[in-house]
Amino acid sequence: MIADICAQVLERITPSKSEKKALYDLTVQIIGKIDRVADEIGVDVHGLLVGSSARNTWTVGEKDIDVFITFPEEISREELESLGLQIAKKVATKYEERYAEHPYIRALYGDHSVDIVPCFRVSDPSSIKSAVDRTPFHNKYLQTRIKGLEDQVRLLKQFMNGIGIYGSELRTKGFSGYLCELLVIKYGSFLGVLESASDWRIGVVIDLEDHGTLKHEDPLVIIDPVDPSRNVAAAVSLDNFCIFIDASREFIKKPSINFFFPPKIAPLTDDEIAKELQARKTDLFAIVFKTPNVVEDILYPQLYKTVKSVEELLHRNDFRVFRSDVWSGAQSVILLEMEVAELPNIKKHIGPPVESSVHSGKFKAKYARSYIKDGRYVAEIPRQYPKVKDLLLSQLQNCGLGKNVSEAIFKGYGVLKNKQIAQIGDREFRIFLRKFFQKR
Amino acid sequence: MIADICAQVLERITPSKSEKKALYDLTVQIIGKIDRVADEIGVDVHGLLVGSSARNTWTVGEKDIDVFITFPEEISREELESLGLQIAKKVATKYEERYAEHPYIRALYGDHSVDIVPCFRVSDPSSIKSAVDRTPFHNKYLQTRIKGLEDQVRLLKQFMNGIGIYGSELRTKGFSGYLCELLVIKYGSFLGVLESASDWRIGVVIDLEDHGTLKHEDPLVIIDPVDPSRNVAAAVSLDNFCIFIDASREFIKKPSINFFFPPKIAPLTDDEIAKELQARKTDLFAIVFKTPNVVEDILYPQLYKTVKSVEELLHRNDFRVFRSDVWSGAQSVILLEMEVAELPNIKKHIGPPVESSVHSGKFKAKYARSYIKDGRYVAEIPRQYPKVKDLLLSQLQNCGLGKNVSEAIFKGYGVLKNKQIAQIGDREFRIFLRKFFQKR
Repeated sequence: MIADICAQVLERITPSKSEKKALYDLTVQIIGKIDRVADEIGVDVHGLLVGSSARNTWTVGEKDIDVFITFPEEISREELESLGLQIAKKVATKYEERYAEHPYIRALYGDHSVDIVPCFRVSDPSSIKSAVDRTPFHNKYLQTRIKGLEDQVRLLKQFMNGIGIYGSELRTKGFSGYLCELLVIKYGSFLGVLESASDWRIGVVIDLEDHGTLKHEDPLVIIDPVDPSRNVAAAVSLDNFCIFIDASREFIKKPSINFFFPPKIAPLTDDEIAKELQARKTDLFAIVFKTPNVVEDILYPQLYKTVKSVEELLHRNDFRVFRSDVWSGAQSVILLEMEVAELPNIKKHIGPPVESSVHSGKFKAKYARSYIKDGRYVAEIPRQYPKVKDLLLSQLQNCGLGKNVSEAIFKGYGVLKNKQIAQIGDREFRIFLRKFFQKR
Repeated sequence: MIADICAQVLERITPSKSEKKALYDLTVQIIGKIDRVADEIGVDVHGLLVGSSARNTWTVGEKDIDVFITFPEEISREELESLGLQIAKKVATKYEERYAEHPYIRALYGDHSVDIVPCFRVSDPSSIKSAVDRTPFHNKYLQTRIKGLEDQVRLLKQFMNGIGIYGSELRTKGFSGYLCELLVIKYGSFLGVLESASDWRIGVVIDLEDHGTLKHEDPLVIIDPVDPSRNVAAAVSLDNFCIFIDASREFIKKPSINFFFPPKIAPLTDDEIAKELQARKTDLFAIVFKTPNVVEDILYPQLYKTVKSVEELLHRNDFRVFRSDVWSGAQSVILLEMEVAELPNIKKHIGPPVESSVHSGKFKAKYARSYIKDGRYVAEIPRQYPKVKDLLLSQLQNCGLGKNVSEAIFKGYGVLKNKQIAQIGDREFRIFLRKFFQKR
């Protein structure tokens, strides 16, 4: 049963021979060009294929190819950056410049997107100068060890992908490809990883080289085989860690190809929105604003920060949030499902104990009326924001929102309530909305 | 200023010479009769005037006279009870039988209501057989000490009365007359008591004879001068203790006759009820039932217990109570002011941590759908009672209500919401309702 499913999955995700050949040919060509250009300039640099394409662990879905330009350690950072770009631009024809720790080039060769990234060729991972310098060591570590396990890696990646936790970007906070490869090496097979994960507990430590030097506070700790101080799984959030444990148990109990390829989700229609609201009797609010023009690794942490700040704002004002989520397309949406949309016009302000005469005096000077309950003064005061909508319209800009989201919201935002949310027609948002309601 | 006010108050509450004479003549006559009847029967008992009328500390408002029939210690409880009633009934003409620890007689002589109560004449307060046996000792203790302080006692009692905390019955949980007399002896004057009370802290101990033997947990501890183990102020609730402290400070700061004679409160009209609800935007509920035919000392503890149980029921169902109170006339009312009257149709059921595989298995077997949040499973389940009214109509009888209230509610009750509460036309209820809304 499981074997059948895995075979079916592999059939869909394993690149064909011709795809593999095309990728191989392309990378040989790029690396050759890099070496030739370097020769012309007269610098001691080499092209190096890294990542899943270097190890034949890529899946049909993954189109990224990473080619590094390795510079000698002695060169300055400035020289690396300028020479790196110079070489990359000579190698590529269609490209755009991008920025991570260093600037790099994303080049297009037909269907293939290739990142051409300069790095330092250090002698040892402990002396790296930037995060990318570690990558060649990862490549070297895996190259021999992953042999014969490529299909198992592909299965695990696709499983992670299917359950929505593949990728270590700040949007997803999930499992990186390198992490999947290490897990397969550790447990020998896709199923071996799932069987082990079924019993994972928060704080589990996996240390392939038995050389970890630091204590990590993350839910999952996989010590980097090439860097004893680094947790490869640092990006994995508690919930994604748990989702993986849960999915592993469920798959073993009741295997299904749906884990790898979840059924397509249809956009929620206007009628369905109304029906959900009617059935749940919660009050749904959407804060909507134009998405700031920044990459996801910048955008999503700000969106997550925003939803957290807004929840705190609501709690401070005695509103209980039932659930919340964020979505981003051309517009961004902070979605808040509330237990109630309105509270009374008044609220209690609990004062000092009556026995404390100094504090009591101050309290009574401030509040013209009060009564005594449970030994303390209590004043009934007007509630500043009895309505969620008014609170959001008035106070959102005083929340911690992150730089770009804050700027976007300053330019203008709307607060939609219940059926008004159907004003957001975006198909992807409607799919997100169905998922939001399905999560129960 | 204060002297003027006190003089005005005393003018209104001090019995006139003729009233005093009438009371004196009446009690002499009753006691004489008791002694004569006792002689006829041939038992060694005596009539004894106790309470405020014995010490000239009664106020015009207080009409109760307590005459005790003191029996020798050697007599049996049964004999005391039967002989006590026999004598009392011969002394009285219009009377009714009542019950406390012993049966006693409440007799009517014109305007005067006189309680004729049998007790044991024990040699020492430590050997009393029932609570009333202590009373003659209180009388004896006060008789000489209170001389010259009678007006001060009357002022303190009227002050307590005016601020609503006079009386140690279970309805009021306030300050008894005896307690007021002890406080005046301790501090020398009405104002001395208030000045001292301004600085009281929870747990303050006042021990006139410096002979207390036990630690009491009450907010106010006044050791009984005739019983070192007893706290005379045991009945005083925390809030009444605080109300007295607060009123003492306020009166000293800004003296007014209103403390003694608060302005009359008009019944709240239908329009005013609607206006209050509109202004507050809370949801007001009244549980209404026929008042059980029991004395207040039985009824009120049950009403207080009921409101507490109902609040707990509401909290268990996620409803927040803003304020509550009880009222009782021909009907009894549990009044509940709620922040909201309705919650969503769904609620969250927080399950076990995902890492705990045994508990997780059980949870998932029970709940067909769940999701993961903060490392735990969460199931969305239907809320059994999304509406306060349905909850009260369905679950009230499963609350701890006390025997008589429970029986009354079993026979039938209604739940009124917001404007429906105007269906209760009772003038006293409407006065209570105005006080309820004024308390802010």
